[in-house]
Amino acid sequence: MSRNVFDNPSFFSKYMELRKDYNHNDLLEHPEMEKLCPDVRGKRVLDLGCGYGSYARSFIERGASYYLGIDSSESMIRKANAENAGDNIEYKLMNLEDLDSFECRFDLAYSSLVFHYIDDFDKLLRAIHSILNNDGILLFSQMHPIISASNGYSGYFEGEYFAFSSYQEEGRREGHWFKQKVISYHRKMSTIMNALASNGFLIEKVLEPLPSLEAVRELPALEKDLVRPTFLIVRARRI
Amino acid sequence: MSRNVFDNPSFFSKYMELRKDYNHNDLLEHPEMEKLCPDVRGKRVLDLGCGYGSYARSFIERGASYYLGIDSSESMIRKANAENAGDNIEYKLMNLEDLDSFECRFDLAYSSLVFHYIDDFDKLLRAIHSILNNDGILLFSQMHPIISASNGYSGYFEGEYFAFSSYQEEGRREGHWFKQKVISYHRKMSTIMNALASNGFLIEKVLEPLPSLEAVRELPALEKDLVRPTFLIVRARRI
Repeated sequence: MSRNVFDNPSFFSKYMELRKDYNHNDLLEHPEMEKLCPDVRGKRVLDLGCGYGSYARSFIERGASYYLGIDSSESMIRKANAENAGDNIEYKLMNLEDLDSFECRFDLAYSSLVFHYIDDFDKLLRAIHSILNNDGILLFSQMHPIISASNGYSGYFEGEYFAFSSYQEEGRREGHWFKQKVISYHRKMSTIMNALASNGFLIEKVLEPLPSLEAVRELPALEKDLVRPTFLIVRARRI
Repeated sequence: MSRNVFDNPSFFSKYMELRKDYNHNDLLEHPEMEKLCPDVRGKRVLDLGCGYGSYARSFIERGASYYLGIDSSESMIRKANAENAGDNIEYKLMNLEDLDSFECRFDLAYSSLVFHYIDDFDKLLRAIHSILNNDGILLFSQMHPIISASNGYSGYFEGEYFAFSSYQEEGRREGHWFKQKVISYHRKMSTIMNALASNGFLIEKVLEPLPSLEAVRELPALEKDLVRPTFLIVRARRI
């Protein structure tokens, strides 16, 4: 398994510090994901890149029959087992691309802000297709292509204008977070849509979340999202 | 019928002057539209916003059984009838939103760089859905949302960076072309995808055209499209 940045102890503790406060994810990404989440009563949920399992109990409380969280970071899986364990909840240390080794099937594949770290998106979608039941749902969020485009996440604001570069050049991007190098992969909006369409998914809903004015009051940095989206959210159905 | 900007004689003649030379449309938009165009042999083609019918004969030459071009500009329809007439080719002066008055059906609804002038996209898609046969194809190009976002088409380059504003605010935009006010409507990528999905279309393919180096040599202005797309092209199937 490739070395995961979250397994660097200093990075991990700084990330956890960050997650203590309300942030973009809590105020913008998560509420929109919730809106698109199907009824999970009696359903089997697979959380791709589950981190420390922060959504596990919520799925079970809403009636999911089983929740499996997978993540490629040992530190995350350890914390998940320690803090977010429960009946019908399991965690597994594995890479997202290795899904095709599963024999069981799921009704919902859920993934929050992880897909932009994946190099081979087609392979990932084939794997997800193989573990979803017919009519199963893939619901994911990722960095918006407008944000992932610029090298080193170097998009910037100039007054009311947001500037980005390299949108048309897909591939590897290096950024830095807490002095640690973080690798992500830029894909154009069209590439994401086409990968879904050509791997057996019907695109049901696409969101580029716009914050409420209430959320902007709570976290003024969200004002930028009134101009351009930070996240892309997609719900697709396996056909 | 609302006053069409192309029916202003000065605007019309300047536009025709522009179309004489190779431009963005010829070198970037049209070749990509061709790649996504289905086999039209024996098929009925409706060209939405056909202009002066520049694609009419090409559809018939490739075996289409019938071509109908509609446009809301009298000057365009007059020029189409004068210059691009032929067997199985017809033109009709009408607004795109009034399609539902047709009794006949089509196999391909084709539209080149017109949809960004349409205010009510949902109404347009409902109308297209109503005149397409089952499994019929909608193939359209439009201004990319990154371009249509900024008021007055005021997006600009700063070195390798492209700056835009107001992406998250959809609606009416005023621009100027040959000193004439031109109204267009900005829709987010997500809104376009959702309108298709919710009006009975399966999204098959999305393109954000990247010019070939050969095309850039022929028209250096296309270099900008190596950074950010000018056009959005979508092929969707009526389901």
